[in-house]
Amino acid sequence: MARSTLYQQVAGELRRAIYSGELGPGAQLPTELDLMDSHEVSRNTVRLALAELENEGLITRMRRRGSFVRDRRALLMRPQDELSASPGVLRREAFAEAVTKEGRKPGQEIEVSIVRPPEEIAARLELEEHALAVVRRRLRYVDDQPYNTNDSYFPHALVRDSEIARPADITRGANRVLEELGHRQVRVVDDISARMPTPEESSRLQLEPGTPVVVYVRVGYDRDDTPVRVAVSVLPSDKHLIRYELELS
Amino acid sequence: MARSTLYQQVAGELRRAIYSGELGPGAQLPTELDLMDSHEVSRNTVRLALAELENEGLITRMRRRGSFVRDRRALLMRPQDELSASPGVLRREAFAEAVTKEGRKPGQEIEVSIVRPPEEIAARLELEEHALAVVRRRLRYVDDQPYNTNDSYFPHALVRDSEIARPADITRGANRVLEELGHRQVRVVDDISARMPTPEESSRLQLEPGTPVVVYVRVGYDRDDTPVRVAVSVLPSDKHLIRYELELS
Repeated sequence: MARSTLYQQVAGELRRAIYSGELGPGAQLPTELDLMDSHEVSRNTVRLALAELENEGLITRMRRRGSFVRDRRALLMRPQDELSASPGVLRREAFAEAVTKEGRKPGQEIEVSIVRPPEEIAARLELEEHALAVVRRRLRYVDDQPYNTNDSYFPHALVRDSEIARPADITRGANRVLEELGHRQVRVVDDISARMPTPEESSRLQLEPGTPVVVYVRVGYDRDDTPVRVAVSVLPSDKHLIRYELELS
Repeated sequence: MARSTLYQQVAGELRRAIYSGELGPGAQLPTELDLMDSHEVSRNTVRLALAELENEGLITRMRRRGSFVRDRRALLMRPQDELSASPGVLRREAFAEAVTKEGRKPGQEIEVSIVRPPEEIAARLELEEHALAVVRRRLRYVDDQPYNTNDSYFPHALVRDSEIARPADITRGANRVLEELGHRQVRVVDDISARMPTPEESSRLQLEPGTPVVVYVRVGYDRDDTPVRVAVSVLPSDKHLIRYELELS
């Protein structure tokens, strides 16, 4: 590898301090002047180093207040929990439950509409050409901060007369309503990937620079192997950790 | 939302064309001159729009050759496959198998060392203070392109006399060796998150700007619930898709 430049050396030392925990979440970095002094470099070099760490999502720079290690306290998502309840048991929707379990406050804004879904969604729902879907678009909050989005698509023909097509919260969760309609999901396929956010996502989720999003798509199938729900979650990577537990039978 | 600026409008139209598939993977974008013409904007506006798409990881700009939609053909990773084989069956290591299944050519470089592991790894392996680990660091290739890295840590006390501590490929996979040592993994916990790459990762994995990595950590436990392996994979997000399938019993 090429010998690293001066600013990369400064960035490297700060990075090690952050990864090792020496500079923990929320900790303030030394000031620009202190860094110039301790590393015997110019202000420009210090600024390049800080810009690099900001782009990596490790620090936040605040005008006049200095630079801080980002809080990487992530919400633990367990995609398996959504399925674990036995059919009869009434419980809360999975996200609200995960947040409450951590002693934090869940919230959401919801918008329900009937749409011709994007091609990829229509394919996953195995819809006929021109068939409609009901989409429930949610912006979710934790402790009043926007946290993630979840857009759930359902075949319109299936859910048109149910609560799913009405613009209100469903406390017991849409999956329970699908059950009541005779379409309990017995199998799900979860696809997980990551990318940089679109400008709309950055603004809606109030993302800081250098924050990728995890895109988590779940397709749920009923016992006839018909897809009855496609849920697309956009999860800012600094705020979420996804965990699966698998047992060998 | 604020009214978008001119360059954002141009970026928006190109983005829609890419997401809709109208401009598919590998397709060349119109030239800067064509874009200036068709949108009646300045060269500077066109360049700002292209820079935005590059930062989002949607296009690659090549000097003098123009801009191209990035190939987003992702390798499908199925973390469950690694566990699905019954104890007696000899098979290939999971990554090599997934790649071969897609008609592509797997490869790897491996480096084995005995280390005092980073704190987070030591904690996950539940090691005593100062205890050592064997780490097998792999850089994996698909069709001769660097694709991802996988660092697997094992308690030194457990594997010191086995093939795992020797610097060579293990065709049947390290998990099989653990089985032979009497430590078959019967439960795994998979943690999935994403972040921007470090400069070392960018260079090692030849990442383009705007490419986050998915970090996938698997901890494997034997039947006494002792952690016997911690595997950390760094997966460039443009090249990987992780899939889990869950059934409700």
